[in-house]
Amino acid sequence: MDAVSLRKLLQDVRSGAVSPDDAVARLRHMPFEDLEDGNVLATKATAEHFRAVKKFVRKAEYRELAKAITLQQDSANYGKGTVVIISAGTSDIPVAEEALVTAEIMGNEVAHLYDVGVAGIHRLLAGREVFDKARVIIVCAGMEGALPSVVGGLARVPVIAVPTSVGYGASFNGLAALLGMLNSCASNVSVVNIDNGFGAGYVASMINRL
Amino acid sequence: MDAVSLRKLLQDVRSGAVSPDDAVARLRHMPFEDLEDGNVLATKATAEHFRAVKKFVRKAEYRELAKAITLQQDSANYGKGTVVIISAGTSDIPVAEEALVTAEIMGNEVAHLYDVGVAGIHRLLAGREVFDKARVIIVCAGMEGALPSVVGGLARVPVIAVPTSVGYGASFNGLAALLGMLNSCASNVSVVNIDNGFGAGYVASMINRL
Amino acid sequence: MDAVSLRKLLQDVRSGAVSPDDAVARLRHMPFEDLEDGNVLATKATAEHFRAVKKFVRKAEYRELAKAITLQQDSANYGKGTVVIISAGTSDIPVAEEALVTAEIMGNEVAHLYDVGVAGIHRLLAGREVFDKARVIIVCAGMEGALPSVVGGLARVPVIAVPTSVGYGASFNGLAALLGMLNSCASNVSVVNIDNGFGAGYVASMINRL
Amino acid sequence: MDAVSLRKLLQDVRSGAVSPDDAVARLRHMPFEDLEDGNVLATKATAEHFRAVKKFVRKAEYRELAKAITLQQDSANYGKGTVVIISAGTSDIPVAEEALVTAEIMGNEVAHLYDVGVAGIHRLLAGREVFDKARVIIVCAGMEGALPSVVGGLARVPVIAVPTSVGYGASFNGLAALLGMLNSCASNVSVVNIDNGFGAGYVASMINRL
Amino acid sequence: MDAVSLRKLLQDVRSGAVSPDDAVARLRHMPFEDLEDGNVLATKATAEHFRAVKKFVRKAEYRELAKAITLQQDSANYGKGTVVIISAGTSDIPVAEEALVTAEIMGNEVAHLYDVGVAGIHRLLAGREVFDKARVIIVCAGMEGALPSVVGGLARVPVIAVPTSVGYGASFNGLAALLGMLNSCASNVSVVNIDNGFGAGYVASMINRL
Amino acid sequence: MDAVSLRKLLQDVRSGAVSPDDAVARLRHMPFEDLEDGNVLATKATAEHFRAVKKFVRKAEYRELAKAITLQQDSANYGKGTVVIISAGTSDIPVAEEALVTAEIMGNEVAHLYDVGVAGIHRLLAGREVFDKARVIIVCAGMEGALPSVVGGLARVPVIAVPTSVGYGASFNGLAALLGMLNSCASNVSVVNIDNGFGAGYVASMINRL
Amino acid sequence: MDAVSLRKLLQDVRSGAVSPDDAVARLRHMPFEDLEDGNVLATKATAEHFRAVKKFVRKAEYRELAKAITLQQDSANYGKGTVVIISAGTSDIPVAEEALVTAEIMGNEVAHLYDVGVAGIHRLLAGREVFDKARVIIVCAGMEGALPSVVGGLARVPVIAVPTSVGYGASFNGLAALLGMLNSCASNVSVVNIDNGFGAGYVASMINRL
Amino acid sequence: MDAVSLRKLLQDVRSGAVSPDDAVARLRHMPFEDLEDGNVLATKATAEHFRAVKKFVRKAEYRELAKAITLQQDSANYGKGTVVIISAGTSDIPVAEEALVTAEIMGNEVAHLYDVGVAGIHRLLAGREVFDKARVIIVCAGMEGALPSVVGGLARVPVIAVPTSVGYGASFNGLAALLGMLNSCASNVSVVNIDNGFGAGYVASMINRL
Repeated sequence: MDAVSLRKLLQDVRSGAVSPDDAVARLRHMPFEDLEDGNVLATKATAEHFRAVKKFVRKAEYRELAKAITLQQDSANYGKGTVVIISAGTSDIPVAEEALVTAEIMGNEVAHLYDVGVAGIHRLLAGREVFDKARVIIVCAGMEGALPSVVGGLARVPVIAVPTSVGYGASFNGLAALLGMLNSCASNVSVVNIDNGFGAGYVASMINRL
Repeated sequence: MDAVSLRKLLQDVRSGAVSPDDAVARLRHMPFEDLEDGNVLATKATAEHFRAVKKFVRKAEYRELAKAITLQQDSANYGKGTVVIISAGTSDIPVAEEALVTAEIMGNEVAHLYDVGVAGIHRLLAGREVFDKARVIIVCAGMEGALPSVVGGLARVPVIAVPTSVGYGASFNGLAALLGMLNSCASNVSVVNIDNGFGAGYVASMINRL
Repeated sequence: MDAVSLRKLLQDVRSGAVSPDDAVARLRHMPFEDLEDGNVLATKATAEHFRAVKKFVRKAEYRELAKAITLQQDSANYGKGTVVIISAGTSDIPVAEEALVTAEIMGNEVAHLYDVGVAGIHRLLAGREVFDKARVIIVCAGMEGALPSVVGGLARVPVIAVPTSVGYGASFNGLAALLGMLNSCASNVSVVNIDNGFGAGYVASMINRL
Repeated sequence: MDAVSLRKLLQDVRSGAVSPDDAVARLRHMPFEDLEDGNVLATKATAEHFRAVKKFVRKAEYRELAKAITLQQDSANYGKGTVVIISAGTSDIPVAEEALVTAEIMGNEVAHLYDVGVAGIHRLLAGREVFDKARVIIVCAGMEGALPSVVGGLARVPVIAVPTSVGYGASFNGLAALLGMLNSCASNVSVVNIDNGFGAGYVASMINRL
Repeated sequence: MDAVSLRKLLQDVRSGAVSPDDAVARLRHMPFEDLEDGNVLATKATAEHFRAVKKFVRKAEYRELAKAITLQQDSANYGKGTVVIISAGTSDIPVAEEALVTAEIMGNEVAHLYDVGVAGIHRLLAGREVFDKARVIIVCAGMEGALPSVVGGLARVPVIAVPTSVGYGASFNGLAALLGMLNSCASNVSVVNIDNGFGAGYVASMINRL
Repeated sequence: MDAVSLRKLLQDVRSGAVSPDDAVARLRHMPFEDLEDGNVLATKATAEHFRAVKKFVRKAEYRELAKAITLQQDSANYGKGTVVIISAGTSDIPVAEEALVTAEIMGNEVAHLYDVGVAGIHRLLAGREVFDKARVIIVCAGMEGALPSVVGGLARVPVIAVPTSVGYGASFNGLAALLGMLNSCASNVSVVNIDNGFGAGYVASMINRL
Repeated sequence: MDAVSLRKLLQDVRSGAVSPDDAVARLRHMPFEDLEDGNVLATKATAEHFRAVKKFVRKAEYRELAKAITLQQDSANYGKGTVVIISAGTSDIPVAEEALVTAEIMGNEVAHLYDVGVAGIHRLLAGREVFDKARVIIVCAGMEGALPSVVGGLARVPVIAVPTSVGYGASFNGLAALLGMLNSCASNVSVVNIDNGFGAGYVASMINRL
Repeated sequence: MDAVSLRKLLQDVRSGAVSPDDAVARLRHMPFEDLEDGNVLATKATAEHFRAVKKFVRKAEYRELAKAITLQQDSANYGKGTVVIISAGTSDIPVAEEALVTAEIMGNEVAHLYDVGVAGIHRLLAGREVFDKARVIIVCAGMEGALPSVVGGLARVPVIAVPTSVGYGASFNGLAALLGMLNSCASNVSVVNIDNGFGAGYVASMINRL
């Protein structure tokens, strides 16, 4: 559920065109309705959005780093293993958290390893015990987007790579990272759109349910 | 194992620099050595390549459509379900077959559904029983690259999208299909490089082993 | 008539440089003067623009979704059939409405089918009776821009495809959708510029008058 | 029907895998089978292709400039008016002829006006009587792709623009012409893929049948 | 002299770091000092910039459409003929005016012909007497950038083409017009940067002085 | 007159479809017919083309470096001064020679200064007496395309810049040079298409005739 | 240390989550901690950032042109020679200053030569004594990015080229300058990212320490 | 000295236009004449080129992997330390060898570490003793171009990154690797053109002489 739809819904609630009950129902019937577990996720949401939602959806929670509103009505664990989210730099964390929250709300055990970019390879190696326990791995990186290749080479599980728009100049808003990931020399890497933490979390969750 | 390395190896065998036994050993120690099952795959191979290999690797087989040489020494089934390969047009079949042979040689049950492009949506729907039995789906398409979105919307399993360089003019050698797949409105789609049937088969196999 | 010209005109009316009568006359002589039916259309107009126009053009109306001001002085039906406008997602509706209002003000019967993206193909198929009655179809889609190919395959009439700038990351402001549509595997599809709902409505109207 | 499929078919006929009768049948069931008039069109065909087809399809004809093989079994006129094909330079003629042959084989009356590029505007104006009688116009141009805008401004009917890959340097294989046509300041212009004479002929024919 | 330098100069005058006399001197020694005629031109200047300059440079004038401040101290005519500036649409006028003011301040007789885009070719032809008297022509156009080709074909003098960033979607901020002009089928056309009215005026002036 | 048209003409002469006299006449009526001086220029011509032309056009000459066939029937000097052609590297010479021959055949006095790239700036400065006598200058450069900026800064006459496709990797077939020249910090520079020596010679000749 | 991290740190200090001592420590442990000399550099910092830092890091200084905050605790000279920074235009100075401050804070003697663009080559040559004393040279240039080639040809030391995003239109935010520098015909030039003054200063410093 | 110049020289020797002595002299005066050590390097040379050169330059040697002809007349060591060349895959070796031979012929001690791509990070770490002894490092990589970032993070010396055109599909002939390297998160990395092994060897040599 994107922020535009959310704002529209809230305006309708304010104007009386939509009742709070209907609003909750609709939140449930947006993109994630097929989760079959009653959970709802709204990405790209601001704190202001959350305050408005909170008024009539008391169970809603706000994940600040991920900029996501969640409504968890089913806390069952549908995954078979752990989804591990790895990020290259601190600037990549918002996208990584979007992936993490998505995987979590879809009923997966998650773990993460942040700020382990390839220019400090020993930090990544030191955290290896974290991703060695993964059933599927999500790697978020901007700039040169090299981290998925290194992780892909170290891990024996599927790796979902998420290019982020972090960078400047010749990063061309994530294009450099995207191309890097598509050309990964590690064979177990597939890629989603730039900044698409949600998509990565969704694919990882679907794999982890198998 | 790419065709260049293969040709080099064959020349060495001819010149006596490499013995047939060493050649077989080396074939085994190329990219796929980590399969742990003794199988070998050489993609982008011509019939001429195959005839040369065949002389000293009698068990080698040639998959013409996929342009792949296989050496199957382990025929165990390591996958938990079926990998289904779908292609949009007849011109996409070589890439689809590369994915299919990769999944097969890595020990997966495979099925396929070819020539079901989106401009004839009923053909795809008619073949739905094929991909309804999939544990993971590979979709190969060139031109506008729309098929993975439609399949992703119909299926409840991970979809690996492979853009192909099929097309002309504004297809820009597969760029149009690649961008289309990265922007797929279906959330269960991830993408590999243009014409990378091998990568798709590898990722699908890794998922199917989970 | 674009918003810049409109604002300029309004300033001139305020300053007295242009009389209200002249303003009405000029509105009539802008791009659409060749409609020969006395109708006027101003696209990309805000509510504020409308309020200003309304003061001296009492018959002017505002189409909020389309962000268009219309001045309908001739309500004859010049089309031979129905122009059907289809959109993929809710975010594509503003462009779709611009096309719809354009076709309408040019004297065509219109119908629409919104929010029928390819990832939910059954919604499109369920709405088929709507576009089966079309003489010409306009399809608006962002992201992967796949919808025109599917509609083109199902319909036997000309399809005008409008890529929208809806999307993020590798959608590159509508480039992905544009390339997808230009490479459509359906032969009855032609394309207009990104977000050019007006152009699509104009071409469709011209076809429908034949 | 593209040249690759055609060659494959001919090889099958030679090898006996396909009987001449089957070959004819298959030719009939390729892309154009939905014409409902029994006519067949193979684009991008060489003289060599034609000689091979001719052996078992005696009625087949070769249109050299268009590089097209036609099999006309129905010569009814399904169009309501004339489809006029205009080209900018002599190098654009092969694409223009592909459009012309497509329109013709689909049962339309056609006329053409070649070599009337915008740098010699009076040649175009001198030929105006040709396109004044059009019900739909196809304009093929490479390099700067400006001709559809001029024609679109002069004509009151739908214009299908076909960018060609004619040019060098910053024409980027037709990209310059494509972008020019998409940004046409004439509102009655829609665009097909680079060098897609077939698509333009198909769309024009569909419009002319309305 | 760009707006940033101008603002800096004005701040220095305000703070007393630069005396008004020095400011005038400096204005004279900026980019145009090589005109040898004592005239000064500041492009991309706002009305606010002008008011500040006016306080201490009483002879300064503001050309609103061109957004240029001029200081004319030499009004000799250094050109041998007339520089004619032509623009395609009303939105191209600011760039056209920048070219016109540049040519004028450099001592050329100028004439202009605005709003004669190629989709209304007869308006251009009707204005032909204006550009028939030109010694050098500047043509400004956005969108498809086709106008220089048509003018180039009609005129027998050098044509300087200026692509403008007017347009949206696939105009890519003037790239479409730029590519169109570089691929012009008229041989007497050369091109300057997008929106570079100043450069066109400068080149035209240099030619006109020969 | 391009090589394709030339070959076609020669085939027609061989087949008897065109008489030698007609061929000569046609050569005269191709692009350069408007020179009004009876001279003809065929660019991009091979030695083989020349031998064929020579048979029936005895006065034809071949300029090997420029790959141009010339037929000079009028040797009047129509230019007012000297056109100087400058090239950066030895690989740029074919394009420079195409410009030089074009200027020459159009009746201009020419001079040249080759192999004076910016990485050896003293060579350029040493040759300054050559371009100080120019009325108009053509500068051909590939790779970074920096030479026109340096020459433009040193000269007080119009500079026509011709990017060449010389280079590899990130030169992208002349794109790097083209962009560099369009962004030249010298105000007297205008640009033609990549490798368009003919266009540069034509524009320079037109300026030199003023 | 980028501005975002800096702001975050300052907010934490304000809220009490981070003590001033910790803040100083953290500043020391950001990217430059490996300098082993205790110096700290924060680039892309505003005057407001500086005022906040200054409150609890009294020794911090602000380099306005470079928009950099420095904390110099070690003033040893680690370089063997002089790092010379050269810029093409006044608009390139902020990037040049970022490079200069970086080299300085890393313990190098620096010198600079600004505003010596290639269109005024004699200014560069006049300043040659400055860069003749360099052990390594940094060259910052936007627009056509030609300066590194000229400097590279004149100097016998390594040249680090920094493309800047200075320019408009076809400069594409520094892409033109970047491509120009990558294609430099001078062999002693290597390149860093657009606007990456810090990276150039870092590489130059590392070379100067050898 | 590029292959084109070489071939030209050889033709001149054959035709007698150039004497063998002159040829040797000219070889010495081509690009590398400024080495001041009498050594000559011809890159991109075939075995055939070498055989021709060998006839009259007996001391010439051929470096097959690098496709380089060398003429070593001075074997002094001008470098202060070791230049280490690292390559990611076996396909990158030709570019790496071009860099290695360049550094060698310019009088540097060299070492190399090949086939240590990031997907097998332990191979790189195992070879660390090789690059720990480097004074300057060259890293050649295609596909995602990630290796320079990892090496840059591990090493404390300048790293020259060379993107190679190795890869397919979205590698766009080395563009992906180039962008990746320009966006490297390691601060000690600078970049040369795609496949420019010579340039990297030249820059490294110049640094190593400091």
